[in-house]
This record gives sequence, C-alpha cells and structure tokens, in this order.
Amino acid sequence: MSSSSSSQKLKVGLLGATGTVGQRFILQLADHPQFEIAALGASSSSAGKPYAQAVEARWKQIRRVPSNVAQMPVYECKPEHFSECQVVFSGLDSGPAGPVEDAFRKAELRVFSNAKNYRTDPLCPLVVPLVNPEHMEILPYQRQQVGTKTGFIVTNANCSTTGIVVPLKALEERFGPLDKILVNTMQAISGAGYPGVSSLDILDNVVPYISGEEEKIEWETAKILGGIKADKTAFDYHEENALKVSAHCNRVPVIDGHMECVSVSFKNQPAPSVEEVKKCFEEFTTEAQKIGVHSAPAQAITLHQEADRPQPRLDRDWQNGAGVNVGRVRKCPVFDIKFVVLSNNVMIGAATSSVMNAEIALAKGYLS
Amino acid sequence: MSSSSSSQKLKVGLLGATGTVGQRFILQLADHPQFEIAALGASSSSAGKPYAQAVEARWKQIRRVPSNVAQMPVYECKPEHFSECQVVFSGLDSGPAGPVEDAFRKAELRVFSNAKNYRTDPLCPLVVPLVNPEHMEILPYQRQQVGTKTGFIVTNANCSTTGIVVPLKALEERFGPLDKILVNTMQAISGAGYPGVSSLDILDNVVPYISGEEEKIEWETAKILGGIKADKTAFDYHEENALKVSAHCNRVPVIDGHMECVSVSFKNQPAPSVEEVKKCFEEFTTEAQKIGVHSAPAQAITLHQEADRPQPRLDRDWQNGAGVNVGRVRKCPVFDIKFVVLSNNVMIGAATSSVMNAEIALAKGYLS
Amino acid sequence: MSSSSSSQKLKVGLLGATGTVGQRFILQLADHPQFEIAALGASSSSAGKPYAQAVEARWKQIRRVPSNVAQMPVYECKPEHFSECQVVFSGLDSGPAGPVEDAFRKAELRVFSNAKNYRTDPLCPLVVPLVNPEHMEILPYQRQQVGTKTGFIVTNANCSTTGIVVPLKALEERFGPLDKILVNTMQAISGAGYPGVSSLDILDNVVPYISGEEEKIEWETAKILGGIKADKTAFDYHEENALKVSAHCNRVPVIDGHMECVSVSFKNQPAPSVEEVKKCFEEFTTEAQKIGVHSAPAQAITLHQEADRPQPRLDRDWQNGAGVNVGRVRKCPVFDIKFVVLSNNVMIGAATSSVMNAEIALAKGYLS
Amino acid sequence: MSSSSSSQKLKVGLLGATGTVGQRFILQLADHPQFEIAALGASSSSAGKPYAQAVEARWKQIRRVPSNVAQMPVYECKPEHFSECQVVFSGLDSGPAGPVEDAFRKAELRVFSNAKNYRTDPLCPLVVPLVNPEHMEILPYQRQQVGTKTGFIVTNANCSTTGIVVPLKALEERFGPLDKILVNTMQAISGAGYPGVSSLDILDNVVPYISGEEEKIEWETAKILGGIKADKTAFDYHEENALKVSAHCNRVPVIDGHMECVSVSFKNQPAPSVEEVKKCFEEFTTEAQKIGVHSAPAQAITLHQEADRPQPRLDRDWQNGAGVNVGRVRKCPVFDIKFVVLSNNVMIGAATSSVMNAEIALAKGYLS
Repeated sequence: MSSSSSSQKLKVGLLGATGTVGQRFILQLADHPQFEIAALGASSSSAGKPYAQAVEARWKQIRRVPSNVAQMPVYECKPEHFSECQVVFSGLDSGPAGPVEDAFRKAELRVFSNAKNYRTDPLCPLVVPLVNPEHMEILPYQRQQVGTKTGFIVTNANCSTTGIVVPLKALEERFGPLDKILVNTMQAISGAGYPGVSSLDILDNVVPYISGEEEKIEWETAKILGGIKADKTAFDYHEENALKVSAHCNRVPVIDGHMECVSVSFKNQPAPSVEEVKKCFEEFTTEAQKIGVHSAPAQAITLHQEADRPQPRLDRDWQNGAGVNVGRVRKCPVFDIKFVVLSNNVMIGAATSSVMNAEIALAKGYLS
Repeated sequence: MSSSSSSQKLKVGLLGATGTVGQRFILQLADHPQFEIAALGASSSSAGKPYAQAVEARWKQIRRVPSNVAQMPVYECKPEHFSECQVVFSGLDSGPAGPVEDAFRKAELRVFSNAKNYRTDPLCPLVVPLVNPEHMEILPYQRQQVGTKTGFIVTNANCSTTGIVVPLKALEERFGPLDKILVNTMQAISGAGYPGVSSLDILDNVVPYISGEEEKIEWETAKILGGIKADKTAFDYHEENALKVSAHCNRVPVIDGHMECVSVSFKNQPAPSVEEVKKCFEEFTTEAQKIGVHSAPAQAITLHQEADRPQPRLDRDWQNGAGVNVGRVRKCPVFDIKFVVLSNNVMIGAATSSVMNAEIALAKGYLS
Repeated sequence: MSSSSSSQKLKVGLLGATGTVGQRFILQLADHPQFEIAALGASSSSAGKPYAQAVEARWKQIRRVPSNVAQMPVYECKPEHFSECQVVFSGLDSGPAGPVEDAFRKAELRVFSNAKNYRTDPLCPLVVPLVNPEHMEILPYQRQQVGTKTGFIVTNANCSTTGIVVPLKALEERFGPLDKILVNTMQAISGAGYPGVSSLDILDNVVPYISGEEEKIEWETAKILGGIKADKTAFDYHEENALKVSAHCNRVPVIDGHMECVSVSFKNQPAPSVEEVKKCFEEFTTEAQKIGVHSAPAQAITLHQEADRPQPRLDRDWQNGAGVNVGRVRKCPVFDIKFVVLSNNVMIGAATSSVMNAEIALAKGYLS
Repeated sequence: MSSSSSSQKLKVGLLGATGTVGQRFILQLADHPQFEIAALGASSSSAGKPYAQAVEARWKQIRRVPSNVAQMPVYECKPEHFSECQVVFSGLDSGPAGPVEDAFRKAELRVFSNAKNYRTDPLCPLVVPLVNPEHMEILPYQRQQVGTKTGFIVTNANCSTTGIVVPLKALEERFGPLDKILVNTMQAISGAGYPGVSSLDILDNVVPYISGEEEKIEWETAKILGGIKADKTAFDYHEENALKVSAHCNRVPVIDGHMECVSVSFKNQPAPSVEEVKKCFEEFTTEAQKIGVHSAPAQAITLHQEADRPQPRLDRDWQNGAGVNVGRVRKCPVFDIKFVVLSNNVMIGAATSSVMNAEIALAKGYLS
C-alpha cells in the first residue's frame, strides 16, 4: 500500500485490544480500505509492550497477528495516547468501559462500542447495522447534550439480540408490527470471552442460564425495533406497540455461532403465510447494503431450505459471518410463525457490527 | 437368590434386546424384585447366539453385561420362543415393532412397548408412569376389541414428551387446564440410538431438527394430559380444552439427558405466582409413588433453586434417572410462567417408563 | 449409625475441602467404615461458613453434598482447629500445601497428601497404594528426623504417574527390571481442577502440553518403582538400574479418565510374550488387596480383551475408579511390548489413593 | 475466466465425487489454474443426478457446492464416461477402488488415488508430495509392465503417515538415516469419513484403536522414506537400513487435524542438538516448492516456538492445510529427539496430496 493511499485512511484507535473481541477488531481492520489502526489500548498490565507480546498466549485466532499491529505499542486507555485518531472502537469489558468511553467522547473522539454500558442511555443509539442505522440521527442531539463538537458514542447490541432483530425487522417492515416473540437461545462459548466458560461446565452439558442475557434480549429488541422520534431527540422503544418478548438463554458446547429458535405472532391478522415470510426474508435489503459499505454482506439474511439448517459449524462463516442465517420457517401451532436463526456471535454479533456502524457513519457524514 | 424366591418372580421377555434401549432394559431388570428375564429376542442376525456375544461391541454401558443374561440364548422375535413369559418389554425399532408387538399380544402376552407404533392407537394407552397410569383402565376394552384374554399393548411416550408432561401434569392438577405451551428442546445424542448421530454432525454443533419429534411432542402431550372417558373405551385428547402446544426440537452434543425450556399459560386467570408454582412442583406426588412401585423415584419432580440448574451432566443420574428435574421457575413476559426441565432420556424417557408401567399394572391387577 | 460405632472411627480432617480434589475426598469419606470427617479446612474466604455454603456453585459432583458435612463449619487450615483429629487428608494446591502440611505434621497429625510439594522429599514416601506401600517403612525415620512422635507426611503420586506404575510394577515383579519406557498421555480436563481448562482451549482440540507433567512422570516413576534401602532411611530411586522414561503429555476433551499409551523394553531378554504379559496383568495382586483394606479394588488391573478398550467414558467408573484398566497388549516393533492404560484421575489418581494409603497405614499400625 | 484460458486447462475427472474426500477434491479443484473438472463419478445410486442433488445432505463443507460442478451430471465410475479427461482423481473407498482404478489406468487415464489399494503395489509410487516425488520415476516402468501408453496409478499416503514423514524426511536429509521411531497419534474424526464415527463413541471419550492404521504407518513410512533403485524399476523400502517404526493410534473428539507425538533416534551418533533439529525443520525445502507448483505451501514445515502449539483447532488451516506443523522439539530421555506434528488430514492428508502429486507430474512431463 502506498503511503498516499494510506494517508487517506481514517486513523482509528482500538480499546481493549488484547481481549477476545479486541482480537476480532484487529483482524476486521487489518486490511480495511477506509480505516487504519493508529493506536492500541489495553489494561495497564499490557501497556508499554508491543502488541504481539502483550496479547501472546491469549491470541486465539487462526490467522496470525497481522504484521501492521504486531510491533505497535500498547497504551493505557487514555485519550492522550489516541490524539492521532478520529475514531475509536471499544472492545472493553463492561467494568472499565463506562468512564473510559465517556472520556474518549469528551476528548472529541467518535466511539463505536461493543460494551453494554451506554446501550440503555437515552442519548446513545443502539445500532444493529443491518436493522436500525437511522438511530444515528440522534447523534447531533447527543453532542449538544454532552457538549462535544465531534465526540459521540454509538453502541451495538448484545450478540444474542443481534441475530434475531434482523429477521424480526424484515417481518415488521413488510407485515407490520409484531405482537409477541418467544426466543430460545443456544449460545456459543466464545460469547463469554477467554478464559470464559470452564470446560468442566460445558463438555457433555448445557447450562440453562447466562447472567443478564434474557433481560438484554427482552429490552434491546424493543429499543432496536422501535423508532426514533421525529425531532431526533429520543427513541420510541416500541412502547405503544407493547411488543412482548420472552427469552430462554442457554450455553451449549459450540465454539462460535448462536442458534436461536423464534416463535412470533403479528398484530395484523391474518398473519402472512410461510411462503410470504420466506419471500420476505430472501428479499430483505438493508441500508448498509444499499450504501454499499465495505463490511456489509451480499445478503442480509441467507434463507436455508434444507430441513436441518442452519447449523453453527457449517454456516457461521458464510459471508465472513457478516449476515444472519435463517431456516426452518414454518407455522407455529401457538403463535403464527416459527423459525431458526444462526448468527456469528464474534462477527456480526460483535466486532463486525461496530465496524459496519462506523462505515455507515462515515458514509452518512457523521465522521466529518 | 433361592429358587423359591426366583420362582415367585414374573417371567418376562425382552424384544430388541441388543439395541440401545434394549441394553437399558437389561440393566433395569437385572436385579428386579418382581420381574425375571426368561427370554431375549432380537433380529435374525443375532438369533442363536448367547446374548453377550450377540451384543458384543454394541454394548455401550458402564456396567458389564449382567451374568444372568450373558449366556442366555437370543431368539428371533416370535411368540413361540417366549411361551414361558407373561410379559414382554419391547425396545424394538418402529420398523419391525408394529406386526411383532401385535403378534405377541395375540399370543396373550402383555406388551409394554417403547416403540411409537401403537401410541396413536385409540385402544392403546400411552402412559407416562408419573402422569397418567389411569389410562390403563382401557385395557379390558382393548382386550375385548382385539379378542384376547390377557394380551394387551401399553406404550410409553417419546423421550422428549415424557420430560415435560410431568411438570405440566402437576400444574394442571393444581391450577386447572393449561392454555398454551411453547417448548424448546435440546436433546441428547443417545436419543437417536447407536450408531445414531454421526460425530461429524454434532461436535461443535447444534442440529435444529429431529425428524418427527416436534409433531410427537405436540400430539402426545394432548393425549397424555387428556383424560379417559367415563366408560373406559376411549381417551379424551384434551380436545375440548384445545390445549395448544408448539415445539422446537434440537440435537446438542450431550450424551444423555434432554433439556427443555418451557413457557406456559393457564386457562384460569390470574395465573399462579412463581412461588405457588414452585410449591406445586415440590409437592407433586404420583400414584406410582403412592402405590410404592419398585422403580418409582422418591421425588417425581426435583426442584432446583440454583440459577443455573438443572444441567444434563450433573443432574441426569439423580434418583437413577427415574424422576424429572425442574429449575429456573420464573415469570414469562409473554406467557405466564417459564421453567427448564431435564429428564434422562434413556431412563424415565425410555426403559424405566416401560418397567414402571409394568410395575403399576402388576400392582393394579392387570397382569393376573 | 449408632454413636458407639461412630466413636470407634478415627477422626480425620480434610484440608482444601472445597476444591475439586477436596470434593472427591468428601464423597470418598462419606460412608467410610473406619474414618469419620471431624473438621474441614479451606482458604480464609471460605472459613466461617457451613461447608454446603462455602462450596456452593463449585460443587460439581453428581451426588449431593453429603448430609454429614453439609452444615459442618469450614475452618482456616490451622492445626488448632483440627485438635480432635488424628489424621488429615490434604487436597491443597501446591501453593499453600508446603508450609501448611508441615505445620500439621509438627502438630503430630498424620498427613496424607495429594499435593506435589513433599513428593521429592527424601524422607517422605511417595506411595501408590497398589504399588509400593512398603515405602511407608521410612516413617519412623521421618518422625525421628523431623522430631515428631506421631506426625508424618505421606504423599501420593501425580495422576498420570499413578495409572502407569501399576502395570509397570506387575511387569517388574514377574519379569525383572524394565529398561526403557515411552509413554504418551491423553489426559482429562478434570486433572486441571476447576475452573481449570478453558472450554475455548479444548473443544474440538488437543493441547500437546501440560506444565511440569512430563517431568513428574519421568522422575516419580523412578522413585515409586525403586526400592527402600535395607536400613529404612532412604529410597533407591531405581538409580542403579537406570530406568529410562520419556513422556509426551496431552490434554484432550475428556471429562474424567487419563489414557496412556505405553511401550516398554525389559532388561532380561528374551522378553516375555504377549500372552505371558497378559497373564501377569490378570494375576497381579497387591498388598492392599491381601490386607483387604476398604477402598482396594477387587482387581488391581482389569485386562480388556476387546480391540478398542479401555475407553474413558465406558471404563473409568469400573470398580468405582479404584483400579486401573489395561488393554491392547501387543508386540512393539521398536521396544518389546506395548499397551494402553486407563485410570480414573480423580479416583485412584487422587483422593482414592490418599484414602487407601491411610487405610494401609492403619492396618499396618502406623496410625496408633 | 475466458474460454481460451479454460481450454488450455487439463480436463480431469473425479471418482468418488460425493464422499468426504471427494468433496475436498471438488473444492481443491474449483478454481485451479491448470486443472478443470470435466466429469464426475460416484456409485450407481448417485448416477444420473446433477452433482448438487446427488451430494445433497452429505455436503458437509463450509463453502457451498461450487457453481462449476453443481449442475454437472454424476456418472458411474466407468472409463467410457471420462473420455474427455486425461487425469482422474480418486476419492473412492477401498472397496470399489481396486478394479475401478485399474480400469481407468487401462483406459489410458492417469490416476491419482487417495485409496489404499495400490499403495503396496511394487509398481505404484506411494508419494507424499512434500517428501518423495522422485518415486514417480517408476512410472515409465509401470506403464511398460501393465501395457499402457499413458495410463498409470500414483497413490498418496494414509493421512497419519503423511504428517510424520515430512519432518522425518527433513531429518534424514540432513542428519542421515533414522534408527527408531515411536509415534502416538490422536486422530480427527473426519479421517473416518461420513457418517463414520458415531458420536456415542467419541463424545467425552478417546478410542485407542483404528483398524489397520498402525500397520499402515509402520510400513508406509518405510516405503516413502526409502529410495528408488537406480534402474527405476523398484523401491528400496528402507530395508537395509532396517528403520523400526512403532505406532499407537487413537481417535479423539477433534473434527479435523491429526496430532502425532514422535520420538526418534538416529543411526549417526552423536545425534543432532535440539537447536540443530529446529533449524533443519525451518530450512526444509521440497522439490514441490522449488518447482513452484500451485498447491505447494510457502513453508513445508511450520515450526512453532510456543510451549503448547501446534493445536488442531488453531493451526490446521494455516497455509490452507497444505503444510505440516511441528512444535515442542526437545530432547527425548529414551531416544534422541521428540516433537509434535499436526497435519490437516483432509487437506495435505488427502485431497491436497493427490492434487499436488498431479501438479508435480504435470511439471515433470508425466502428463504429456
């Protein structure tokens, strides 16, 4: 890459660079045509070391540490070390994420965060890039309220929420508001980070509980599928429509890829037929694809026709994990329609969502 | 054991003795105080060999082949070889089970079958021993209709149905009829027999489909929770109450133990509280326990208080797998109550149910 | 149990009671005919709580916490809390084990330890109960040297060493000294404690390294198979015979049960035939069995004839994991003989060995 | 791709196209610069169907069926259907492979086979492309003996042999003949094809036996590392050097990637140091790389420096599985050196070897 083309790229920083999500950001940004990693942040125990040394035995990716970051120094997560950057991606744990991300915003950086801390914030958009990028229209108001010129925080959703809101959005867009949703998740171990789930807890086992997860699915879905008010100062939360969501969350012995069984009913009756729903999924096109941002998948929803697909091992890496997989669309004897969703929790469920949000923000002029 | 005590035992035969379910019957009956294996049946390729040799490399149990059957000859599944027996247990595959079981019934043997063939038969009781043993009251009518003096067929339910109907029965008994049930299963590989599920299909994977399984849960639940008509000639099928059941069935990399996430709503409102439901589960006592049959568990339902239990690996062998485990009882934002059920699919979900049904039949005089 | 029979039992303490090995001690001692748990020790964070509460979510056993210890208070591991006891079992991690076990010895308690700290100590016997109980003859000399009247420390071996020394001892006893041993282990995750191995490291994977493990196998084997000097003041370490041992250690996705592939050559040539070796294994009888101590298995070595056995899942619980399983005895094209060993790393490989050592010590008068 | 460039490609056929190995061939050849799939063969039950339909639910690859073959008709494995082809690749099972491959050879096709049938044939080269491509020099003599003008059979090795002979060849090339080799394998389930290993046999388990595998490693290694006689009419089999090889073969719950622990001793003493061996592995370059054939990896051997690598999940896909991974090079207390090898059994261990052999044959003029 010539230095001139490189100099045209936006310089970005990465917070939490040595963690599981941070490693995915590293790979996602390694050859990015618009973003260039210019600074890396991690905990004070890593600070001062070159990245390859700081991450060392915790690097659990098939690709090696990319050469563009291997020798880059790791800093503490303080804005002073990121003065070259215009954007930071945050893969921080929820512990440190709150004050750190706020400090970066106040230092006029645009923060795209995978942490949960600001998801409930009434000023912060919670954006699944294939679903509700228009929620970023609140950003001017966020800046005004927190007193920044350029700094803001955009969050993306929990990995188990991300998977289901894509087909749910497709359904609402075509068939009107949903009434009730029952979702049962079978979530991969990588969702818990590293070392995360003990092998003694999950080999030959299922754990029917993930702390805080059911609540996240229940309210995040309502915020994401809800609208933004006309004056762009608040979100709608689907309150009037009173969407009801109930989740059962389980951990299963799968490395990557969250499976979710979904039953839905519609406000408008008669409900669409199975064939209409399948057609709706196949034809669903998102703004990210229309704009043509770099990380957007060719198909937002890949519809499987086989009786036993999608499956995590076979389908999670399709389209580099940037879309979602839907299968087994059929009538539900209790609700209207039921189907299965598979999403790659470490890609569209985490780093890919943050990066795609930044790509959309760039395309829409929020980064200038 | 003295010959006198042995001679007081009821002589039983076993069909499908070399298969996965058959092996469990062998263990279940090895030291049984009332039943004594007197004849073994399997496919013609096994016929003529001593049992230990016929089952050989397919014996996948931790206990060795019990000495009381190791040298017993294996016969073809024809009634003439079982003339000593009064009862036969059937672990046959659904392929041969239909005509074979009927032939044994016609030969005046009482057949307790784990196969699916006669579950839908309007004359055959479909009995989960911890739920609806009273359905056996149809047996005199069955005999009359098929023209036998003593011979009859009693079936037990599919393993994934068996787990959930126990707590559902407890709820109906105390709080009146249920309205809607949504169940999501995560089923063990042993449910598919041996060799069954290919390891390439299930390691690091979930398969969101089990052929015919969702339909079985949906209608078997209705038959089991339904009543028997006053004149003891037909079942009620829960038709009038129009119980609605919807199931999502998944195969997960677990050896034994089916996990099922259940959401239910009640006809009678207001619905019971979480505390009332927990109390109901803890206090649930079944006829099998009251009679005190040999294989009945001390507790039909073991209620777990920990946030993350039951789990297959830790809880499937509790009470020798003869009861069911329930946990995570909590409010459902869409229905009334949700909870998790774990049952041992090879014990209460298969052989243990058949044997317990025979014990109940013996206690109630149907075997004399 | 009447108080009189109970009062005849030896009161024992347990150090490291809440850990993975500690939990196995709890179960091993729950119904023991000679030992009775009288005091429990753990880290200061557990001290003061009843055992059931202290161990709580870390209790990963299929059996529930036994009622005899559930409400017993947990103390810090200081001798003053164990004054009632005559014996303590130690399931401590190697971090605290060194000074703590020494303090208990100095307080005149007999310590049976699963920790590695005193294994190399020239005064401490390293005893695999099915192999070298005669090493306890050094105990009078140990007491003399450390200045105690009754207190001493006996250690048992690393779990991967324990499995192989049983058949190796059988071979040496009958065919004379071994020359070279090459062993390759495939070790269960439970060997690393809880939380231990991250599921992200072991699902769909093998890790070809366990810190310190190969060295332990190499030197522990030499000490255990070596003799004790005639004056009972030192061990022989197999030095003159110069037994050579080489180990490759691997972690595999198995819950319990270490598999080990062993190739051996003999000093005395011609080497025994495959049939002679098989006979030797089948006939091997140990002192523990001759004395008839409570935890000794009926067979020290279970010899498997099937081509594909032993296997961890099917054979690890045979004889309650107190013996070892050997199979695939055959000629080695490079050495003389090769075979496969399976041992239950949490039973004979840990708690069962300590308890059996104490049973032997009791039978031989070392506890009076 | 323009039709002109396509027309310059060599037309190849594929036998056993729907099996596990056949699917890998399909992917390996999908975008090949020199070979173009022109005909597909499978069993008579698949014949007549378009490939995508014939393979259907057995397609277990992450990539979809490539469009260039999806609609191609599947034929029976008879030469008359492959008249357009000059080369055929065979992924047939050993059952049909013998006569079928011979028929294709007699029909003047060059056969590159992954089946075991002709590996022991004294006229057929057994070629691991990174080790002994010079064995193809026997091909003129093979043609002469079987009476063909162009037709011949080249086989590649068993997957577990392939992994170890690469580093063993590197050692012999630099340090002279090896004396003794002891290898212990931990092999992936994909090595057994589909459905292959039952999940009930391998979840939470290790199976210490793979039929015929130990023998294959023992003699194939001797043929591959042996030379070809000066007159190019026979192989040397390492007989004079009397290389001794002993293998323990195990199946472990890993999807792809065979791990092998190897201990070796050298004829020439003093043996090389650990550092010399590491240098030897890093510098090892093969003829395939020198010629620059398409599928050759950049590095034949990737040497890992970390204590716990290689690992199947993290390293099997490095270089698209075309090289081998070596790690943990260290002194062996019994032999001279020990180390760990990981190879991708479905890539370099199967389809990639066959294709690379054909590339080498093309470069060396054997296909003209």
